[in-house]
Amino acid sequence: MKSLFMKSIFVLLLFVSTAFAADPLPSWNDTAPKKAIVAFVEEVTKPGSPSFVPVEERIATFDNDGTLWTEQPVAFQGYFIFDRIKALASQHPEWISKEPFASILKGDLNSALASGINALPEMIIATQSGITSDEFEKIVTDWITTARHPLTKRLYTEMVYQPMLELLTYLRANGFKTYIVSGGSIDFMRPWSEKIYGVPPEQVVGSSIKTKFELRNNIPVLVGMPELDLMTAGNGKPIGIQLHIGRRPIASFGNSDNDLPMMQWTAAGSGARFCLYVHHTDAQREWAYDRKSIDPFDKGLDEALAKGWTIASMKDDWKIIYASDPQRGK
Amino acid sequence: MKSLFMKSIFVLLLFVSTAFAADPLPSWNDTAPKKAIVAFVEEVTKPGSPSFVPVEERIATFDNDGTLWTEQPVAFQGYFIFDRIKALASQHPEWISKEPFASILKGDLNSALASGINALPEMIIATQSGITSDEFEKIVTDWITTARHPLTKRLYTEMVYQPMLELLTYLRANGFKTYIVSGGSIDFMRPWSEKIYGVPPEQVVGSSIKTKFELRNNIPVLVGMPELDLMTAGNGKPIGIQLHIGRRPIASFGNSDNDLPMMQWTAAGSGARFCLYVHHTDAQREWAYDRKSIDPFDKGLDEALAKGWTIASMKDDWKIIYASDPQRGK
Repeated sequence: MKSLFMKSIFVLLLFVSTAFAADPLPSWNDTAPKKAIVAFVEEVTKPGSPSFVPVEERIATFDNDGTLWTEQPVAFQGYFIFDRIKALASQHPEWISKEPFASILKGDLNSALASGINALPEMIIATQSGITSDEFEKIVTDWITTARHPLTKRLYTEMVYQPMLELLTYLRANGFKTYIVSGGSIDFMRPWSEKIYGVPPEQVVGSSIKTKFELRNNIPVLVGMPELDLMTAGNGKPIGIQLHIGRRPIASFGNSDNDLPMMQWTAAGSGARFCLYVHHTDAQREWAYDRKSIDPFDKGLDEALAKGWTIASMKDDWKIIYASDPQRGK
Repeated sequence: MKSLFMKSIFVLLLFVSTAFAADPLPSWNDTAPKKAIVAFVEEVTKPGSPSFVPVEERIATFDNDGTLWTEQPVAFQGYFIFDRIKALASQHPEWISKEPFASILKGDLNSALASGINALPEMIIATQSGITSDEFEKIVTDWITTARHPLTKRLYTEMVYQPMLELLTYLRANGFKTYIVSGGSIDFMRPWSEKIYGVPPEQVVGSSIKTKFELRNNIPVLVGMPELDLMTAGNGKPIGIQLHIGRRPIASFGNSDNDLPMMQWTAAGSGARFCLYVHHTDAQREWAYDRKSIDPFDKGLDEALAKGWTIASMKDDWKIIYASDPQRGK
């Protein structure tokens, strides 16, 4: 009871400090996307507003790769999988002559990725099945705190977008529950999503493999099985949202065609809705790509333009990209 | 922001009113189970306590049928399914000669249930597949607000246990997130769990069928498929907990062998843990059953006794069963 009291005091202090803060989104330029975000939040949170939305229905869903952190030259879980496959190779002599494993072991990532997203399930199964949930959590935690991006040499968690961190905080300060809805593996994101994004494990939606429950020497364990459960990319995103959340989001944030079904599902609800696409336009500070890329933003771009969804250009609308960028004086 | 401010004021008022309230569990007798509950909550919430648990890890999971509401003479979703099958019979002439449908249509529920839990997946698929998520939500909402229990003639939602409602509220007031983890269909529980139990849809874990996403005349819909996804009974409970929550509960509440794997998974975590079984001992006010019944409490009872888990006897430990009971003066 006492801790709840302290929490209430904290929320009150937060209210006071936020109310006097000049700008909840300091890394966003004062351009159209920022104005659209603030207008939407004020519209749905103002009591008496015709578009008012009760706190419990303020659900916001965020894609991860390319929306909350970089996804170039490949989605970061790819590097994790490559490292795991190298670590496990001695137990799998058959991988030397079996793709995509053979190319990964030779360090030829382009060939390994030649079969594209189709190779992903096999790679996820190879790295997650046969081990317990506790073991996998430790493997991910060790990797995410030490592995570095091959080009920038930064920790992967230093490549999260500062403007999106501010957006997550701003939405939560206005009563939103923020969810990640990613095609990446749910078990890969949960060990660090709370620390990095402030999104707790129970608000992470991602692709999953089947698991089994068993007692090992009377100790209960959950063990990964070599079978996909649900892939939450593309059409799998609204399916994952319904399964894990059971409410339709009122705001969604993405960066590619993979997010389009989530945007359509969000936009089709009644009342005020907000969809925002992050557009990768900054070849100097990040990467520039859209219609034809490893994560195509083609149909999504057309539909966003046709429907008047918000498009945030990283080059024009973001003051900084990463909190760790030198221009921020760190 | 203003609503968050109001919410904080509300939480403060709640704190003040609760702090002065004599008893957060007035429908529980002052016997061992109530004392064990209060001791556990004080132990994990008191700052500086060696068993202190941070708010974000205070996860409590509750079985539904037989734990939060009655499950006799059959689990209530059974009545919903029977009613749906009758309503859909004209579209399925083949059901007249196919079990369990034939028996249901003849009103012979005992024969329909003769094949036990094995017939459940087929019945869930028959009543949920081929319709959209929005359509099914409306069907459930209409049913739950009008259908009545065949013996008590009450609304099913009037047969929820008052002591357990108080327990849910007490845990939430102490920073717990309360989840339902039921073998029943997730889509059957979500439309009313928030109103009846204060448990929002995103905190309901249950059995699911596969769904597909499609655009119908440019309107996105999620449609149930005739294929089971996950059954969250028995060993499926910890599997569902990991999939939907991604954290291990520190407290679990159940009433049968179906809940035993959830209890084992909960109890095996490090730090303070709490497991409570509701024991159906009150043939006069509710039903009395355990080891051999439609929801056997046999291995679970042995393990609870061996491990010293808390067992709440409905006859001895609960002052009232339902809020709607006459002895409560209604």
